[in-house]
Amino acid sequence: MKSYRKELHFMIPSRRGIVNITEQVRRAIRESGIREGLVLVNPMHITASVFINDDESGLHHDYEVWLERLAPEKPYDQYRHNGYEDNADAHLKRTIMGREAVVAVTEGDLDFGTWEQIFYFEFDGKRDKRVLVKIIGE
Amino acid sequence: MKSYRKELHFMIPSRRGIVNITEQVRRAIRESGIREGLVLVNPMHITASVFINDDESGLHHDYEVWLERLAPEKPYDQYRHNGYEDNADAHLKRTIMGREAVVAVTEGDLDFGTWEQIFYFEFDGKRDKRVLVKIIGE
Amino acid sequence: MKSYRKELHFMIPSRRGIVNITEQVRRAIRESGIREGLVLVNPMHITASVFINDDESGLHHDYEVWLERLAPEKPYDQYRHNGYEDNADAHLKRTIMGREAVVAVTEGDLDFGTWEQIFYFEFDGKRDKRVLVKIIGE
Repeated sequence: MKSYRKELHFMIPSRRGIVNITEQVRRAIRESGIREGLVLVNPMHITASVFINDDESGLHHDYEVWLERLAPEKPYDQYRHNGYEDNADAHLKRTIMGREAVVAVTEGDLDFGTWEQIFYFEFDGKRDKRVLVKIIGE
Repeated sequence: MKSYRKELHFMIPSRRGIVNITEQVRRAIRESGIREGLVLVNPMHITASVFINDDESGLHHDYEVWLERLAPEKPYDQYRHNGYEDNADAHLKRTIMGREAVVAVTEGDLDFGTWEQIFYFEFDGKRDKRVLVKIIGE
Repeated sequence: MKSYRKELHFMIPSRRGIVNITEQVRRAIRESGIREGLVLVNPMHITASVFINDDESGLHHDYEVWLERLAPEKPYDQYRHNGYEDNADAHLKRTIMGREAVVAVTEGDLDFGTWEQIFYFEFDGKRDKRVLVKIIGE
């Protein structure tokens, strides 16, 4: 069994934002030399998500509006976590979107359907963040 | 390390529907000959989920009502994604239910508790859909 | 490829409760002797979650309030699942929080960012429950 580890780095200039990281994950798989296995992709932070869905700007706007309805950012004092912080909503939004994606690696590439794309979703930006890509297989 | 890949096919005749796929995943594990490892099960589409819960029709009804409350199908024009499409709610419902299930394979079978069952949840049916089963281990 | 399996046991004295299980998962990784791979952690039950977030009591309180808003426990008869049971809300809350966590194992330890911790979240306690830790790698 082989394994490969890579960190991706992001600095989103706003509080929230979505980045398509599919090609960066693909590149990590090629670098690994692994042909058959699994790839795990997760933020190394607790106020961000890695998720798989459509690369369509209307949908990304709908996510923003919908998450803000399910877990509003303000008023900040509605959350007990917001004593020294103001990012409780970021923890909740990341919970809805999920932490990690696990994807099959087949013939040296992401084993994806036509529309599947991998995204990094930042909920508490304006700082450096890391995403871990871990590949195991053969 | 061995790996095994199989696609399951579904055509749900309504917009939404739940199918118990536990036995189909079990069969794939037997076919793989893998005794110890992990199995990943995910739709190859972005408007469907694979999830693990109870095989109880009352609960499945509750899911339908609850998801419709959290991410209503209509009015269609509440979502920016619904320009040429009408399935924005399907993307959001799939987000709540999650994309994939990762399950331990132990002694050649799903390593499950008493009530765990795997389901395919369709949110935009009336068309052919695929579920990927990828098993790695030994 | 090596694999290792361990069950953790919990008996939460109240209906709901959160337990930090990070050190127990770490111990299982050390016992496994696996240096590079993946660890899967999941409840063997359908009314509990394993999730990764911050070990901060204010946030855990916020989760309780927020989940109760998204999937209220009462009135019990709002859910069709609650014929002989009263735990439909537990199935829904577990769906929001997710079932499982998959984490990279690197150099014989959890490959975590600074604030990542693993928790067991019970939604239907006062009974014995099990969490499965499955590690594969080399």
